[in-house]
Amino acid sequence: MDQFKQGMRQLAGAVTVVTAGKHDDIAGLTATAVCSLTADPPRLLACLNMNGVTFELLRRHGRFCVNVIGEDDLRVAEAFAGMGHVPPTGKFGVGEWEMAEDRAPRLRSALVAFECKVHSVTMLSTHGLAIGDVTAVHVAPHCGPLLYHDGQFAGLAGLLPA
Amino acid sequence: MDQFKQGMRQLAGAVTVVTAGKHDDIAGLTATAVCSLTADPPRLLACLNMNGVTFELLRRHGRFCVNVIGEDDLRVAEAFAGMGHVPPTGKFGVGEWEMAEDRAPRLRSALVAFECKVHSVTMLSTHGLAIGDVTAVHVAPHCGPLLYHDGQFAGLAGLLPA
Repeated sequence: MDQFKQGMRQLAGAVTVVTAGKHDDIAGLTATAVCSLTADPPRLLACLNMNGVTFELLRRHGRFCVNVIGEDDLRVAEAFAGMGHVPPTGKFGVGEWEMAEDRAPRLRSALVAFECKVHSVTMLSTHGLAIGDVTAVHVAPHCGPLLYHDGQFAGLAGLLPA
Repeated sequence: MDQFKQGMRQLAGAVTVVTAGKHDDIAGLTATAVCSLTADPPRLLACLNMNGVTFELLRRHGRFCVNVIGEDDLRVAEAFAGMGHVPPTGKFGVGEWEMAEDRAPRLRSALVAFECKVHSVTMLSTHGLAIGDVTAVHVAPHCGPLLYHDGQFAGLAGLLPA
Protein backbone atom coordinates (compact mmCIF):
# COMPACT_ATOMS: atom_id res chain seq x y z
CA MET A 1 0.00 0.00 0.00
CA ASP A 2 1.90 3.02 -1.32
CA GLN A 3 -0.47 5.35 0.49
CA PHE A 4 0.73 3.89 3.77
CA LYS A 5 4.36 4.76 2.99
CA GLN A 6 3.30 8.20 1.80
CA GLY A 7 1.28 8.69 4.97
CA MET A 8 4.14 7.54 7.20
CA ARG A 9 6.33 10.29 5.70
CA GLN A 10 4.07 12.70 7.60
CA LEU A 11 4.70 11.01 10.95
CA ALA A 12 7.77 12.83 12.23
CA GLY A 13 10.09 10.84 14.44
CA ALA A 14 13.02 11.37 16.75
CA VAL A 15 16.18 9.94 15.24
CA THR A 16 17.88 7.21 17.22
CA VAL A 17 20.74 4.83 16.57
CA VAL A 18 19.94 1.39 17.93
CA THR A 19 23.03 -0.68 18.66
CA ALA A 20 23.46 -4.32 19.60
CA GLY A 21 26.22 -6.83 20.25
CA LYS A 22 29.28 -6.52 22.44
CA HIS A 23 33.04 -6.42 22.34
CA ASP A 24 33.99 -6.46 18.65
CA ASP A 25 30.83 -8.15 17.41
CA ILE A 26 28.68 -5.02 17.14
CA ALA A 27 26.23 -3.36 14.77
CA GLY A 28 23.84 -0.46 14.71
CA LEU A 29 21.28 1.29 12.56
CA THR A 30 19.43 4.57 12.41
CA ALA A 31 15.79 4.14 13.42
CA THR A 32 12.77 6.27 14.22
CA ALA A 33 10.38 3.48 15.20
CA VAL A 34 11.15 3.63 18.91
CA CYS A 35 8.78 4.58 21.68
CA SER A 36 8.18 4.51 25.41
CA LEU A 37 6.03 1.65 26.63
CA THR A 38 5.72 1.80 30.42
CA ALA A 39 7.50 3.80 33.12
CA ASP A 40 6.90 1.18 35.81
CA PRO A 41 8.75 -0.98 35.01
CA PRO A 42 10.87 1.19 32.67
CA ARG A 43 10.35 -0.35 29.26
CA LEU A 44 10.57 0.76 25.65
CA LEU A 45 10.12 -0.80 22.26
CA ALA A 46 11.93 -0.66 18.93
CA CYS A 47 10.83 -2.02 15.54
CA LEU A 48 13.73 -3.31 13.49
CA ASN A 49 14.01 -4.97 10.12
CA MET A 50 14.60 -8.61 10.92
CA ASN A 51 17.07 -9.12 8.07
CA GLY A 52 19.68 -6.78 9.49
CA VAL A 53 22.77 -7.63 11.51
CA THR A 54 21.64 -5.36 14.36
CA PHE A 55 18.51 -7.42 14.86
CA GLU A 56 20.51 -10.65 14.69
CA LEU A 57 22.93 -9.43 17.39
CA LEU A 58 20.07 -8.11 19.52
CA ARG A 59 18.57 -11.59 19.55
CA ARG A 60 21.87 -13.39 20.06
CA HIS A 61 23.13 -11.30 22.97
CA GLY A 62 19.77 -10.21 24.43
CA ARG A 63 20.85 -6.60 24.84
CA PHE A 64 20.57 -3.36 22.90
CA CYS A 65 21.05 0.36 23.37
CA VAL A 66 18.81 3.16 22.05
CA ASN A 67 20.88 6.30 21.46
CA VAL A 68 18.75 9.42 20.92
CA ILE A 69 20.56 11.66 18.46
CA GLY A 70 21.02 15.43 18.80
CA GLU A 71 21.15 17.97 15.97
CA ASP A 72 24.91 18.15 16.21
CA ASP A 73 25.30 14.42 15.52
CA LEU A 74 23.69 14.47 12.09
CA ARG A 75 26.75 12.73 10.63
CA VAL A 76 26.30 9.84 13.07
CA ALA A 77 22.66 9.42 11.99
CA GLU A 78 23.74 9.53 8.34
CA ALA A 79 26.52 6.99 8.79
CA PHE A 80 24.23 4.49 10.49
CA ALA A 81 21.57 5.08 7.84
CA GLY A 82 24.07 4.10 5.15
CA MET A 83 24.38 7.69 3.93
CA GLY A 84 27.26 10.12 4.05
CA HIS A 85 30.89 9.42 4.75
CA VAL A 86 31.94 6.29 6.61
CA PRO A 87 35.64 6.08 7.55
CA PRO A 88 37.74 2.97 6.89
CA THR A 89 37.34 2.04 10.57
CA GLY A 90 33.59 1.64 9.97
CA LYS A 91 30.45 3.34 11.22
CA PHE A 92 31.57 3.31 14.84
CA GLY A 93 34.44 5.54 13.73
CA VAL A 94 31.85 8.34 13.41
CA GLY A 95 31.10 9.87 16.82
CA GLU A 96 32.53 8.89 20.17
CA TRP A 97 31.29 5.49 21.30
CA GLU A 98 31.69 3.80 24.66
CA MET A 99 32.39 0.12 24.11
CA ALA A 100 32.06 -2.46 26.85
CA GLU A 101 32.66 -6.19 27.16
CA ASP A 102 29.08 -6.97 28.08
CA ARG A 103 26.93 -4.15 26.71
CA ALA A 104 25.90 -2.65 23.39
CA PRO A 105 27.82 0.45 22.24
CA ARG A 106 26.68 3.78 23.67
CA LEU A 107 27.12 7.14 21.97
CA ARG A 108 28.66 9.46 24.56
CA SER A 109 27.04 12.52 22.99
CA ALA A 110 23.52 11.05 22.80
CA LEU A 111 20.82 13.33 24.28
CA VAL A 112 19.83 10.22 26.17
CA ALA A 113 20.91 6.61 25.86
CA PHE A 114 18.77 3.76 27.13
CA GLU A 115 20.58 0.49 27.81
CA CYS A 116 18.13 -2.38 27.50
CA LYS A 117 17.86 -6.07 28.22
CA VAL A 118 15.53 -7.83 25.79
CA HIS A 119 12.18 -8.59 27.43
CA SER A 120 10.60 -10.14 24.33
CA VAL A 121 10.85 -10.15 20.57
CA THR A 122 7.79 -10.59 18.36
CA MET A 123 8.26 -11.29 14.67
CA LEU A 124 5.72 -9.62 12.42
CA SER A 125 6.22 -10.09 8.70
CA THR A 126 9.38 -8.12 7.81
CA HIS A 127 10.07 -6.62 11.23
CA GLY A 128 10.92 -7.65 14.74
CA LEU A 129 9.24 -5.81 17.58
CA ALA A 130 11.76 -5.75 20.40
CA ILE A 131 10.61 -4.82 23.89
CA GLY A 132 13.42 -3.86 26.23
CA ASP A 133 13.67 -3.60 29.99
CA VAL A 134 15.71 -0.48 30.60
CA THR A 135 18.71 -1.22 32.81
CA ALA A 136 20.52 2.13 32.64
CA VAL A 137 19.73 5.65 31.42
CA HIS A 138 22.34 8.25 30.51
CA VAL A 139 20.77 11.70 30.13
CA ALA A 140 22.91 14.47 28.66
CA PRO A 141 20.87 17.05 26.75
CA HIS A 142 23.16 19.68 25.22
CA CYS A 143 21.44 20.59 21.95
CA GLY A 144 18.10 20.12 20.23
CA PRO A 145 16.92 16.71 19.01
CA LEU A 146 17.39 15.49 15.47
CA LEU A 147 14.13 14.61 13.75
CA TYR A 148 13.14 12.89 10.53
CA HIS A 149 10.10 14.01 8.56
CA ASP A 150 9.02 13.71 4.93
CA GLY A 151 12.29 12.09 3.88
CA GLN A 152 14.54 14.71 5.50
CA PHE A 153 16.42 15.32 8.69
CA ALA A 154 15.20 18.37 10.61
CA GLY A 155 15.43 20.17 13.91
CA LEU A 156 12.95 21.47 16.47
CA ALA A 157 11.47 24.97 16.64
CA GLY A 158 9.36 26.86 19.13
CA LEU A 159 5.73 27.39 18.16
CA LEU A 160 4.59 30.83 17.08
CA PRO A 161 1.79 32.16 19.26
CA ALA A 162 -1.58 31.48 17.59
CA MET B 1 12.93 4.90 37.78
CA ASP B 2 12.78 8.71 37.62
CA GLN B 3 15.75 8.76 35.29
CA PHE B 4 13.70 6.86 32.75
CA LYS B 5 11.00 9.55 32.75
CA GLN B 6 13.62 12.25 32.59
CA GLY B 7 15.30 10.46 29.70
CA MET B 8 12.04 10.00 27.83
CA ARG B 9 11.53 13.79 27.89
CA GLN B 10 14.45 13.90 25.45
CA LEU B 11 12.78 11.54 22.99
CA ALA B 12 10.78 13.93 20.79
CA GLY B 13 7.58 12.54 19.35
CA ALA B 14 5.03 13.42 16.71
CA VAL B 15 1.74 14.35 18.33
CA THR B 16 -1.24 12.19 17.40
CA VAL B 17 -4.79 11.87 18.65
CA VAL B 18 -5.80 8.21 18.83
CA THR B 19 -9.57 7.71 18.65
CA ALA B 20 -11.72 4.64 19.17
CA GLY B 21 -15.37 3.68 19.29
CA LYS B 22 -18.14 4.47 16.83
CA HIS B 23 -21.39 6.35 16.51
CA ASP B 24 -21.87 8.21 19.81
CA ASP B 25 -19.75 5.87 21.92
CA ILE B 26 -16.38 7.48 21.17
CA ALA B 27 -13.24 8.59 22.94
CA GLY B 28 -9.76 9.81 22.11
CA LEU B 29 -6.50 10.86 23.64
CA THR B 30 -3.32 12.67 22.70
CA ALA B 31 -0.42 10.26 22.30
CA THR B 32 3.14 10.24 21.06
CA ALA B 33 3.85 6.52 21.50
CA VAL B 34 2.87 5.55 17.96
CA CYS B 35 5.13 4.12 15.28
CA SER B 36 5.25 2.35 11.97
CA LEU B 37 5.70 -1.40 12.18
CA THR B 38 5.65 -2.91 8.69
CA ALA B 39 4.74 -1.55 5.26
CA ASP B 40 3.80 -4.96 3.88
CA PRO B 41 1.22 -5.50 5.27
CA PRO B 42 0.62 -1.88 6.35
CA ARG B 43 0.71 -2.04 10.12
CA LEU B 44 1.39 0.36 12.97
CA LEU B 45 1.41 0.25 16.73
CA ALA B 46 0.21 2.48 19.55
CA CYS B 47 0.89 2.23 23.28
CA LEU B 48 -2.05 3.34 25.38
CA ASN B 49 -2.73 3.46 29.09
CA MET B 50 -5.01 0.53 29.72
CA ASN B 51 -7.13 2.38 32.27
CA GLY B 52 -8.50 4.90 29.79
CA VAL B 53 -11.84 4.86 27.96
CA THR B 54 -10.06 5.03 24.58
CA PHE B 55 -8.30 1.74 25.24
CA GLU B 56 -11.55 0.17 26.46
CA LEU B 57 -13.39 1.20 23.27
CA LEU B 58 -10.47 0.09 21.09
CA ARG B 59 -10.75 -3.38 22.56
CA ARG B 60 -14.55 -3.48 22.48
CA HIS B 61 -14.97 -2.36 18.86
CA GLY B 62 -11.67 -3.62 17.44
CA ARG B 63 -10.98 -0.41 15.53
CA PHE B 64 -9.04 2.78 16.07
CA CYS B 65 -7.79 5.79 14.14
CA VAL B 66 -4.40 7.50 14.48
CA ASN B 67 -4.71 11.18 13.58
CA VAL B 68 -1.34 12.89 13.07
CA ILE B 69 -1.66 16.48 14.26
CA GLY B 70 -0.36 19.56 12.45
CA GLU B 71 0.99 22.75 14.02
CA ASP B 72 -2.28 24.54 13.35
CA ASP B 73 -4.26 22.02 15.40
CA LEU B 74 -2.46 22.65 18.69
CA ARG B 75 -5.82 23.26 20.39
CA VAL B 76 -7.01 19.79 19.32
CA ALA B 77 -3.90 18.20 20.84
CA GLU B 78 -4.42 20.21 24.03
CA ALA B 79 -8.11 19.30 24.35
CA PHE B 80 -7.40 15.56 24.00
CA ALA B 81 -4.52 15.85 26.47
CA GLY B 82 -6.92 17.28 29.04
CA MET B 83 -5.42 20.76 28.72
CA GLY B 84 -6.84 23.99 27.38
CA HIS B 85 -10.42 24.84 26.61
CA VAL B 86 -12.98 22.09 26.03
CA PRO B 87 -16.43 23.27 24.86
CA PRO B 88 -19.68 22.03 26.48
CA THR B 89 -20.10 19.65 23.50
CA GLY B 90 -16.94 17.86 24.63
CA LYS B 91 -13.49 17.26 23.14
CA PHE B 92 -14.85 16.33 19.71
CA GLY B 93 -16.26 19.88 19.58
CA VAL B 94 -12.64 21.01 19.05
CA GLY B 95 -11.60 20.57 15.40
CA GLU B 96 -13.65 19.13 12.57
CA TRP B 97 -14.26 15.40 12.98
CA GLU B 98 -15.71 12.94 10.53
CA MET B 99 -17.97 10.55 12.40
CA ALA B 100 -19.15 7.26 10.93
CA GLU B 101 -21.44 4.46 12.05
CA ASP B 102 -18.74 1.83 11.89
CA ARG B 103 -15.41 3.61 12.25
CA ALA B 104 -13.47 5.63 14.80
CA PRO B 105 -13.61 9.44 14.46
CA ARG B 106 -11.21 10.99 11.95
CA LEU B 107 -9.87 14.53 12.15
CA ARG B 108 -10.41 16.08 8.71
CA SER B 109 -7.41 18.39 9.13
CA ALA B 110 -4.98 15.66 10.24
CA LEU B 111 -1.70 15.65 8.27
CA VAL B 112 -2.45 11.98 7.84
CA ALA B 113 -5.05 9.72 9.42
CA PHE B 114 -4.58 5.96 9.60
CA GLU B 115 -7.77 3.94 10.08
CA CYS B 116 -6.92 0.63 11.73
CA LYS B 117 -8.46 -2.70 12.54
CA VAL B 118 -6.98 -4.22 15.70
CA HIS B 119 -4.54 -7.01 14.83
CA SER B 120 -3.55 -7.77 18.43
CA VAL B 121 -3.39 -6.22 21.85
CA THR B 122 -0.68 -7.10 24.36
CA MET B 123 -1.05 -6.00 27.96
CA LEU B 124 2.19 -4.96 29.63
CA SER B 125 1.91 -3.66 33.16
CA THR B 126 0.12 -0.28 32.89
CA HIS B 127 -0.14 -0.10 29.11
CA GLY B 128 -1.71 -1.92 26.21
CA LEU B 129 0.33 -2.32 23.07
CA ALA B 130 -2.15 -2.22 20.20
CA ILE B 131 -1.06 -3.36 16.75
CA GLY B 132 -3.34 -2.21 13.96
CA ASP B 133 -3.79 -3.36 10.38
CA VAL B 134 -4.20 -0.16 8.39
CA THR B 135 -7.42 -0.24 6.35
CA ALA B 136 -7.43 3.33 5.02
CA VAL B 137 -5.00 6.24 4.83
CA HIS B 138 -6.01 9.87 4.38
CA VAL B 139 -2.99 12.04 3.55
CA ALA B 140 -3.46 15.82 3.60
CA PRO B 141 -0.27 17.68 4.56
CA HIS B 142 -0.94 21.43 4.69
CA CYS B 143 1.34 22.62 7.50
CA GLY B 144 4.25 21.38 9.59
CA PRO B 145 3.85 18.60 12.15
CA LEU B 146 3.21 19.23 15.83
CA LEU B 147 5.84 17.69 18.07
CA TYR B 148 6.25 17.12 21.79
CA HIS B 149 9.64 17.37 23.48
CA ASP B 150 10.82 18.05 27.02
CA GLY B 151 7.28 18.69 28.28
CA GLN B 152 6.36 21.18 25.55
CA PHE B 153 4.67 21.28 22.20
CA ALA B 154 6.95 22.39 19.37
CA GLY B 155 7.26 22.64 15.62
CA LEU B 156 9.78 21.54 13.04
CA ALA B 157 12.70 23.57 11.67
CA GLY B 158 15.16 23.13 8.85
CA LEU B 159 18.70 22.24 9.87
CA LEU B 160 21.40 24.86 9.63
CA PRO B 161 24.27 23.76 7.38
CA ALA B 162 27.07 22.30 9.50
